[in-house]
Amino acid sequence: MQLSQLSDRAGVSLATVKFYLREGLLPPGTPVAATRAEYGEQHLHRLRLVRALVEVGGLSLSAVRRVLRAVDAEDVGVHELLGAAHQALTPTVAAPADGTGVAAARSRVDALIGELGWRVSPDAPARSELAAALVALERLAMPATESDLRTYAAAAHDVARHDVATVPLDGPRARTVEWVVLATVLYEPVLLALRRLAQEHESARRTAPVRRGPRSEKSGGLHRM
Amino acid sequence: MQLSQLSDRAGVSLATVKFYLREGLLPPGTPVAATRAEYGEQHLHRLRLVRALVEVGGLSLSAVRRVLRAVDAEDVGVHELLGAAHQALTPTVAAPADGTGVAAARSRVDALIGELGWRVSPDAPARSELAAALVALERLAMPATESDLRTYAAAAHDVARHDVATVPLDGPRARTVEWVVLATVLYEPVLLALRRLAQEHESARRTAPVRRGPRSEKSGGLHRM
Repeated sequence: MQLSQLSDRAGVSLATVKFYLREGLLPPGTPVAATRAEYGEQHLHRLRLVRALVEVGGLSLSAVRRVLRAVDAEDVGVHELLGAAHQALTPTVAAPADGTGVAAARSRVDALIGELGWRVSPDAPARSELAAALVALERLAMPATESDLRTYAAAAHDVARHDVATVPLDGPRARTVEWVVLATVLYEPVLLALRRLAQEHESARRTAPVRRGPRSEKSGGLHRM
Repeated sequence: MQLSQLSDRAGVSLATVKFYLREGLLPPGTPVAATRAEYGEQHLHRLRLVRALVEVGGLSLSAVRRVLRAVDAEDVGVHELLGAAHQALTPTVAAPADGTGVAAARSRVDALIGELGWRVSPDAPARSELAAALVALERLAMPATESDLRTYAAAAHDVARHDVATVPLDGPRARTVEWVVLATVLYEPVLLALRRLAQEHESARRTAPVRRGPRSEKSGGLHRM
């Protein structure tokens, strides 16, 4: 297909497609004339991948480039790829400006992972991200309790177990690799959006009990527990 | 305290503190001389709040401004505040460029919320965020299954139940309000970091079983299940 068709089918403006080509996020097409190149289904797929990472994952172009490098690396195993994806995806949670509490938070994270029996590389970036979040909470005088961390860890483990169990291992390698990256990135907004929806529900339950009366004016749009 | 002390105690550079003052993110101090103002504990607290929202929450300055407006609004109830916080915090997941599948995804989100019995306002931004994530997955030929959504919703509900149960309702109102905003924002990286750690653990379990032999060279750093 031509560039304009590629743009149409992906729902991405021609200017953006040209920008991705210049930036090397999309491989060049096959030249069929001096000023025309032909693009295939793999271009369409890659273009949708880039858009999903940018729009849904909220990744910067340099982060997208790191992810694509991991997707394209032939010699990386699936478990190693997960690590590479996490490295590439890590949101740059800025380290706290001074060191107060940082070492203690990091020790607490390491202890938690040990107690949970989780096998996680000592240099996994998520350890530092979690420590940074704990430092911020501590400084705002709302430190995370053991109960907070246990509840969050249990919920995170439930979704992670599901994530890893559904990785397709029997298809082409590129598909497996892409799945790992996408499932990591694209299910983050799914989880956060569902948490907010559930918060609203729980808040409504706590502060505004459902009316039980039949034909109550307000009960029509509310769901019973 | 003077501006330089405020900067020291918060671990935020003087230039940044001055920038926040100019931008109105930090209220002015009490003038004590022609070129000097005095700052109190409430300035320190607000400064830490702004830094946490920017550094850990990853919020833009305009999003921080919206959050502070909700924190400072005296007439907003706690449940309404949660909605206001969600509105302010909503990551701008760009709407898909064309409409294919968007209406269907939105119907699916609404149906899911109905089936779960969750009481959520029809215009909650998280509904659209979730729909946008589902559209992106669909377009990449890895649509979220019912099982995916149920697993994620159950985990999200577990943490949300905990979140809402721990909101302090008996302290000063400003504290309650700030807690709701901060717990929504600052526990997002906690949840995502724990999910990544748990993914790595589950991936290690699936692809590299723990060696059972005593004194195995590699088993030292690994935790038994």
